[in-house]
Amino acid sequence: MTTITTDADGAFVRSSSFVDDRITADGSDGWPVEPGRYRLVVSLACPWAHRALIVRRLLGLEEAVSVAVADPIQDHRSWRFTLDEDGRDPVLGIRYLGEAYERARPGYDAGISVPAVVDVPSGRLVTNDYPQITLDLSTEWRAHQRAGAPDLYPEKLRPAIDAVAEEIFRDVNNAVYQTGFAQSQQAYESAYHRLFDRLDTLSEHLATRRYLVGDTITEADVRLFTTLVRFDAVYHGHFKCNRAKLTEMPVLWAYARDLYATPGFGDTVDFDHIKRHYYLVHTGINPAGLVPVGPDLAGWSAPHGRDALGGRPFGDGTAPAPRPDLVGRGYRGFASPRPLG
Amino acid sequence: MTTITTDADGAFVRSSSFVDDRITADGSDGWPVEPGRYRLVVSLACPWAHRALIVRRLLGLEEAVSVAVADPIQDHRSWRFTLDEDGRDPVLGIRYLGEAYERARPGYDAGISVPAVVDVPSGRLVTNDYPQITLDLSTEWRAHQRAGAPDLYPEKLRPAIDAVAEEIFRDVNNAVYQTGFAQSQQAYESAYHRLFDRLDTLSEHLATRRYLVGDTITEADVRLFTTLVRFDAVYHGHFKCNRAKLTEMPVLWAYARDLYATPGFGDTVDFDHIKRHYYLVHTGINPAGLVPVGPDLAGWSAPHGRDALGGRPFGDGTAPAPRPDLVGRGYRGFASPRPLG
Repeated sequence: MTTITTDADGAFVRSSSFVDDRITADGSDGWPVEPGRYRLVVSLACPWAHRALIVRRLLGLEEAVSVAVADPIQDHRSWRFTLDEDGRDPVLGIRYLGEAYERARPGYDAGISVPAVVDVPSGRLVTNDYPQITLDLSTEWRAHQRAGAPDLYPEKLRPAIDAVAEEIFRDVNNAVYQTGFAQSQQAYESAYHRLFDRLDTLSEHLATRRYLVGDTITEADVRLFTTLVRFDAVYHGHFKCNRAKLTEMPVLWAYARDLYATPGFGDTVDFDHIKRHYYLVHTGINPAGLVPVGPDLAGWSAPHGRDALGGRPFGDGTAPAPRPDLVGRGYRGFASPRPLG
Repeated sequence: MTTITTDADGAFVRSSSFVDDRITADGSDGWPVEPGRYRLVVSLACPWAHRALIVRRLLGLEEAVSVAVADPIQDHRSWRFTLDEDGRDPVLGIRYLGEAYERARPGYDAGISVPAVVDVPSGRLVTNDYPQITLDLSTEWRAHQRAGAPDLYPEKLRPAIDAVAEEIFRDVNNAVYQTGFAQSQQAYESAYHRLFDRLDTLSEHLATRRYLVGDTITEADVRLFTTLVRFDAVYHGHFKCNRAKLTEMPVLWAYARDLYATPGFGDTVDFDHIKRHYYLVHTGINPAGLVPVGPDLAGWSAPHGRDALGGRPFGDGTAPAPRPDLVGRGYRGFASPRPLG
């Protein structure tokens, strides 16, 4: 997400321009599920794209859906493949993600966002509808998930997951942007209080429950985690969400560390991409372009003690195997790198 | 201090242009100690001026040296008395502190800084030499200090105090500005590491000692306190000194709370002036001019437990009486307001 738009009161308004075709098991949108056919384009910096990376790992869809990792620093043409040889994604053969948007919608002039799923044969963008992408990986791609894949969106829990996901989107995922991109003190303060009020509510809820909904990891936890893991590294200082650091909110901090220690969560986090993206791209709020050295990230590996709350992280399923590639640092293909620091 | 100058490597260089006459007991510089004759001009935001406010309170010089409090927000003519009726300091009769500089040095075109001591009869600036101002309050104004005033600069400890004060200036007081105002990543990181290395050394030192030098409060503690009290409110986020918050450095945090609870320290802190000054004046690093709502300051009043280390805060002297004016909120005259939050 890159375009910063504010309303008359100076409040940040998130773009809602989606290309929202769906890839489905029955192919009803013209895009049938088919292993190897689609490429998921992400930035490791972006919390919305990070959701898809986590879900793909948890479900064991690495072989079925390949990944392209964009440079965390966009230029005036937005996300680009400058981390790849010759600056081109090796599978799609394009230099800018925008080229896939243009092939899907000639003359497209709205925002270029990640996550984006591209049809490899035609090079066309299929969807950048991030809330739907993860749900479809859970439900439409079931035939290609690994043995033991958890159900992240179980039918009987969907109303509860949808409800908490809505609160998390409005008051956490998007609220941090609304504090940081506010163009008036009033708009900033309004978002700030909405954010911390919600974090208080979530802390209370999670004090006695290991996960947000039910006793297993669900889509709701994925959506909360991607903001929490960026909180101290970026949102606390850069976006002025500074009532307290995550490390000073004991329940949420232990909850986040529990997930971080779970395969699929911590092993998809790249603090280097995260910090460089926000601090170098948002010149409107960080004109000198300095990237903070801190925070000290050592605490992420500290014992979290959340096992005592019970819960069955993967329900009737199992944890994904450790990433085979964690030794290397290559950004391309299936893998995102080991977190730094 | 307002002018931001950097060297060829992008490192912030503090202006050293002082008007450095001295007010002495023997009047050898032409400015004899005389109760009621001089006015100390401060900003409650400014750590360099804050030193003088603390020392004046500890020594009971409130009646002898009156105080003018400038608006925390400077304009293009620098510090101004817009908090006072008609925008004029009621004693000096001037609207801008620069007028006193001009009377002392016609054609003065260097930085206008606080603290500044002004001769009331002539309206002329006597000195803005902040490291000397506090030492002279301790040593030259002895005849007018309250009964029980502590010796903040005892002769036999001066070499030790000077040595630690030099380290604190270079690696703490000034280093936070060098991180925030750096114009290159290298200059920023260099200052950042110098700062946190020094804080580590100071933490180790203070783990077993209640104060920096000897077993009483000295000038050295005053100089460290004024940076620590601003750390989480400003330097951590605004200046990117973000390895950890003060609240996450247990020894320094308890040390700072101990001083904060001591009359003369906490009762000269104004977090509102501090936050508004830095965040609204430095448009080069905070262009949108949002002032963070956080951090939560409640922890400042938590028990510090430092009494267990022994020490005699005021040595053979006594603590100053509580401020008689703490009920009110007026900014003028002898008093700075009660800290907010």
